[in-house]
Amino acid sequence: MLWHVEIVVRIPHDAGPEEIKALSAAEVERAKTLQREGKWLHIWRIAGKWANISVFNVKDGAELHEILALLPLYPYMKIKVTPLCIHPASIENERTVELQELAADRSVF
Amino acid sequence: MLWHVEIVVRIPHDAGPEEIKALSAAEVERAKTLQREGKWLHIWRIAGKWANISVFNVKDGAELHEILALLPLYPYMKIKVTPLCIHPASIENERTVELQELAADRSVF
Amino acid sequence: MLWHVEIVVRIPHDAGPEEIKALSAAEVERAKTLQREGKWLHIWRIAGKWANISVFNVKDGAELHEILALLPLYPYMKIKVTPLCIHPASIENERTVELQELAADRSVF
Amino acid sequence: MLWHVEIVVRIPHDAGPEEIKALSAAEVERAKTLQREGKWLHIWRIAGKWANISVFNVKDGAELHEILALLPLYPYMKIKVTPLCIHPASIENERTVELQELAADRSVF
Amino acid sequence: MLWHVEIVVRIPHDAGPEEIKALSAAEVERAKTLQREGKWLHIWRIAGKWANISVFNVKDGAELHEILALLPLYPYMKIKVTPLCIHPASIENERTVELQELAADRSVF
Amino acid sequence: MLWHVEIVVRIPHDAGPEEIKALSAAEVERAKTLQREGKWLHIWRIAGKWANISVFNVKDGAELHEILALLPLYPYMKIKVTPLCIHPASIENERTVELQELAADRSVF
Amino acid sequence: MLWHVEIVVRIPHDAGPEEIKALSAAEVERAKTLQREGKWLHIWRIAGKWANISVFNVKDGAELHEILALLPLYPYMKIKVTPLCIHPASIENERTVELQELAADRSVF
Amino acid sequence: MLWHVEIVVRIPHDAGPEEIKALSAAEVERAKTLQREGKWLHIWRIAGKWANISVFNVKDGAELHEILALLPLYPYMKIKVTPLCIHPASIENERTVELQELAADRSVF
Amino acid sequence: MLWHVEIVVRIPHDAGPEEIKALSAAEVERAKTLQREGKWLHIWRIAGKWANISVFNVKDGAELHEILALLPLYPYMKIKVTPLCIHPASIENERTVELQELAADRSVF
Amino acid sequence: MLWHVEIVVRIPHDAGPEEIKALSAAEVERAKTLQREGKWLHIWRIAGKWANISVFNVKDGAELHEILALLPLYPYMKIKVTPLCIHPASIENERTVELQELAADRSVF
Repeated sequence: MLWHVEIVVRIPHDAGPEEIKALSAAEVERAKTLQREGKWLHIWRIAGKWANISVFNVKDGAELHEILALLPLYPYMKIKVTPLCIHPASIENERTVELQELAADRSVF
Repeated sequence: MLWHVEIVVRIPHDAGPEEIKALSAAEVERAKTLQREGKWLHIWRIAGKWANISVFNVKDGAELHEILALLPLYPYMKIKVTPLCIHPASIENERTVELQELAADRSVF
Repeated sequence: MLWHVEIVVRIPHDAGPEEIKALSAAEVERAKTLQREGKWLHIWRIAGKWANISVFNVKDGAELHEILALLPLYPYMKIKVTPLCIHPASIENERTVELQELAADRSVF
Repeated sequence: MLWHVEIVVRIPHDAGPEEIKALSAAEVERAKTLQREGKWLHIWRIAGKWANISVFNVKDGAELHEILALLPLYPYMKIKVTPLCIHPASIENERTVELQELAADRSVF
Repeated sequence: MLWHVEIVVRIPHDAGPEEIKALSAAEVERAKTLQREGKWLHIWRIAGKWANISVFNVKDGAELHEILALLPLYPYMKIKVTPLCIHPASIENERTVELQELAADRSVF
Repeated sequence: MLWHVEIVVRIPHDAGPEEIKALSAAEVERAKTLQREGKWLHIWRIAGKWANISVFNVKDGAELHEILALLPLYPYMKIKVTPLCIHPASIENERTVELQELAADRSVF
Repeated sequence: MLWHVEIVVRIPHDAGPEEIKALSAAEVERAKTLQREGKWLHIWRIAGKWANISVFNVKDGAELHEILALLPLYPYMKIKVTPLCIHPASIENERTVELQELAADRSVF
Repeated sequence: MLWHVEIVVRIPHDAGPEEIKALSAAEVERAKTLQREGKWLHIWRIAGKWANISVFNVKDGAELHEILALLPLYPYMKIKVTPLCIHPASIENERTVELQELAADRSVF
Repeated sequence: MLWHVEIVVRIPHDAGPEEIKALSAAEVERAKTLQREGKWLHIWRIAGKWANISVFNVKDGAELHEILALLPLYPYMKIKVTPLCIHPASIENERTVELQELAADRSVF
Repeated sequence: MLWHVEIVVRIPHDAGPEEIKALSAAEVERAKTLQREGKWLHIWRIAGKWANISVFNVKDGAELHEILALLPLYPYMKIKVTPLCIHPASIENERTVELQELAADRSVF
């Protein structure tokens, strides 16, 4: 199922800048891996903040917790989780079907 | 640019149910049209609420306002707008490129 | 998965008392049915409020939304959903195993 | 009587990690003991947070306070207590009776 | 056990003044009865508000709920319940003992 | 006049435990003295918090401030003051009269 | 003693304008009377709001409540009471003495 | 024009007590000077807090800012500014006129 | 001096649409007049809301209040006033000088 | 497009004053440069706070983020971004036209 997650990062002003830099780099790598695995569907930065809005696609709260709690910057994150479901006005399904047909067409060749 | 929009719908208890029903149906139609035009990228329902989280792709605040203010249920909406930008950890671009190649491949045939 | 749901009921003072009474009765029936089906695990009243704290056991946000949105008093509810997962300090599993053994023992006879 | 307790743990970033680790381990042990004694009925983790939602079954506010104030991580906890009572829609009693009958049946043999 | 209860009364401006007057009178009577029964230990008005701060002495959350939910003005009340316990700095016990000795002395005659 | 005072104590995690212990002991002594002087009428602990709810009986805001500002733990207190007055539903006066008669009766002997 | 009182007036949009007008006029008269009696020391309007900030000089919370609860617009007021006391940096006393000397001088003639 | 200013002082617990003492003394001196200059009309302490409510009489926001930003304890202050204007129910003008007549009378002699 | 004013308009759902339309039209006219008079320097709409952020240039709080309280939609406005002053980093003065020189140059011809 | 940005600066009390001074000076220089480039249209100080209200004119959220995140005091800023659009009551366009005509006239010579 889909999860809306808002993450605000707050670094204490007396934290070591080198450590934060290293954690941030590890964070980016971890985020990319999870995106490639299809667990982390979207990540957008909020303009003007050290914060992001993300959408995760994971089985349940336990899997979501495991992913979030292992993020390198987790100790500095303020996290707000909102469970999502299909909206009756969404055409996401239509689009997925089109995309699958597109991919299917191509695989023919 | 991308916009994160959270919309909560609050119907006064003495509103006419027929009118609300008609407005809701019109709302769904309008949302689908805007999705097909590529303006309304995502719409998800928040589980347990008459509310949705959406992502719009429109030029600026003026275009966003025009779209929102003309939604059939607008008078009953509480709207929170958050401007988004590309996150350095996002692989959305990679994926878009893949998709474009996919589409390009296909159009060859 | 498990969901923590806090429900506060707010009846507008000019709502018809007969209608509210009928909805409340229907609400109790629906809650009992869902408990018997194993979807609604716990329901406790908050002392001093027309409110309850509940735990649901449903597959995902979509199923939770469907259940909540069909409750008779839903239009008058303020709902807060919190996704749960197993706590590392919980002995719920131990207890479940004991209970299953208990039931297994009995079914022998 | 039953008590709903929400506990959020907040560790200052300059606390010693060894001390926190030791306190966390002691916390888990204490929680298990209290569950086995029937004082701590339920403990669930909130997905995405270092936090739990618990239900305690203790005589009064004094006993509850004594238990909470002696938890190893208490100095780092933000605690919200909500008193509960039986909900008229609950079938917990029915279930308890069934369970007791089940246990009674078994003890015959 | 003791309960701290803050009650704010909010009358909708279009409620019938006669009905509110009657409910208020009934409320005063009920409060006096509960005080005489020793359930409602203290009631003070908050200066400048239609609100009171009270201390109840009842067995548990269920008894507290039953009392509050039957107050004549309950539908118009916003109630905040806080469970209390003996404070280590309190001399209430000393005073109670003195008072009991006083009463005991007197009953001799 | 009567004053409702809610006091939450917040100790910074890097404060010296010996100093806090000493201040706490001094606090208890000061609270008992003020209770015996009739200035501090009630003090109850809030279950689950390092916090108390108190009622003071002092002449005016100046006297209240002087008492609070001299409490040993004052620098760590978050204080909320609410002015009280007699509630029309209170029978405190009746009780005081009874108590005075009781004391008067006794003093006869 | 002195009391800081912030009063915000909120008129429901469907209240009768004639009644509000009459209450407002009565309110002004009452405020002037209380100022002349020395009970209502200061009243200032908050720029941009139907609201005022006032300072009252009354004996205790009971007298303050009685005055506020009898104001003609009281049912539409949101009131916040803050108890004041002499500030150690204030020269109000010096000024009062000067004023009294001034008045004393004059009364000689 | 008149300005309502609420100032709460918050000293970090690890600030040097000597420095704070010196700043506090300087603060009192500065406040008295500004009162004598007629810029700082009133200063009252809020009972139970290290906080004051003040009224300033300065030309505009720039002058107010300059005064506040130069207060010795400014770095530790949380400041809330509210612009005031004459209230239609105020008799301050009447009183000023009386006072001026009083002073005028006296200056005759 | 300059004032930052945030205005949110909230129309009750049962207000007459004709009356609101007429008030809105009058509001626009009044806003334009005040802009031409140089009192209302800027007005921007907040994207996604019936709300605006404005900057006024008026002498004091009294003039600001008079302007705001006479706006046609005032009874439906929630207004937040923030006093402004010159920022040390602003080059507004430089620009004004350039503009004046520009105008001066032109007036030569 | 236009963006309303409210920036509050909060310096931890144990930050080095020299470093803050240097950052503040760099901040002023950066702000002036951005104003001259036409990106930072307005900057006003909020009276009584270390805070400013600004209006930026930049293409999208990405450009806004880049500008804000590179401000020297950014690590100490709390930033609130609000997207703006043209208000139907604004005469800004009229004024721009006049100004352009003024400039055009002048360029003739």
